[in-house]
Amino acid sequence: MSGWIVGFTDGEGCFSVSLIRNATTKIGWQVFPEFVITQGAKSRTALEEIQTFFECGRIYENRRYDNHREHLLRYCVRSLRELRERIIPFFQRYELKTHKKNDFKKFCEIISLIENGHHSTHEGVTKIAYHISEMNRKSKPKFLESSETTRRTLETEMI
Amino acid sequence: MSGWIVGFTDGEGCFSVSLIRNATTKIGWQVFPEFVITQGAKSRTALEEIQTFFECGRIYENRRYDNHREHLLRYCVRSLRELRERIIPFFQRYELKTHKKNDFKKFCEIISLIENGHHSTHEGVTKIAYHISEMNRKSKPKFLESSETTRRTLETEMI
Repeated sequence: MSGWIVGFTDGEGCFSVSLIRNATTKIGWQVFPEFVITQGAKSRTALEEIQTFFECGRIYENRRYDNHREHLLRYCVRSLRELRERIIPFFQRYELKTHKKNDFKKFCEIISLIENGHHSTHEGVTKIAYHISEMNRKSKPKFLESSETTRRTLETEMI
Repeated sequence: MSGWIVGFTDGEGCFSVSLIRNATTKIGWQVFPEFVITQGAKSRTALEEIQTFFECGRIYENRRYDNHREHLLRYCVRSLRELRERIIPFFQRYELKTHKKNDFKKFCEIISLIENGHHSTHEGVTKIAYHISEMNRKSKPKFLESSETTRRTLETEMI
């Protein structure tokens, strides 16, 4: 099962970290790490097997349809503790073979920053945002373009 | 390696059969079965590992870019002998876990029809086309809409 999960994650998995505006947090942004595997509804059992294997995570149904007009299912692990205790040790032991390995490395670095409290300082979140921008995604986090970040970066450059 | 290949195929693999117009064949259509795994250029080594494992197939570079502005690579096995002797026995031994298992089953049925010469009769290709239409794809094969097929189907219905 381990080999299959690594292969399936190399194919369909995603180590994702989002930065979301959230006024209730100290710096107005929330760091949101997530391990996700997406599949069409017809392959629900495959996601359930993964959920059973990791003994954590939830399967969410997405209203969006995929190319084959199926509902999309997302297996997600969002709890920091479960990411740290179950997901990360597994992929450290059984290495990914595709370029996704680099995303996983950045993901681990971000989790470590969060665990050390850096997600609640502007400097820490800037560091996290740069890690995210190096992950395999299309656009830079909006955080890096926010006026506050631009002002602080300019100030730093002027010192 | 076997588990990883099954998982990766469940994620990114494709058992595909195309029907292509080809005036040089007896019935004007050619059956074109293919096992394909697509990846961005950054994950070339993963495809090379699969190629080494199966001891067959080729990696083609596609000019098209994927979402991450990478060239796409396609690992393809097209030889009927290699599909029959290497790819099919592997996935019969190590079962796929997603809905792709059904595509694989149809794929095997089509390969068997080809091996028994049915790809060079109109009736055989019609059978193959119906198998294809039950595979996980968006559109029906054009063969099923060709005037020749429509005429013959109507004739059969009138008998």
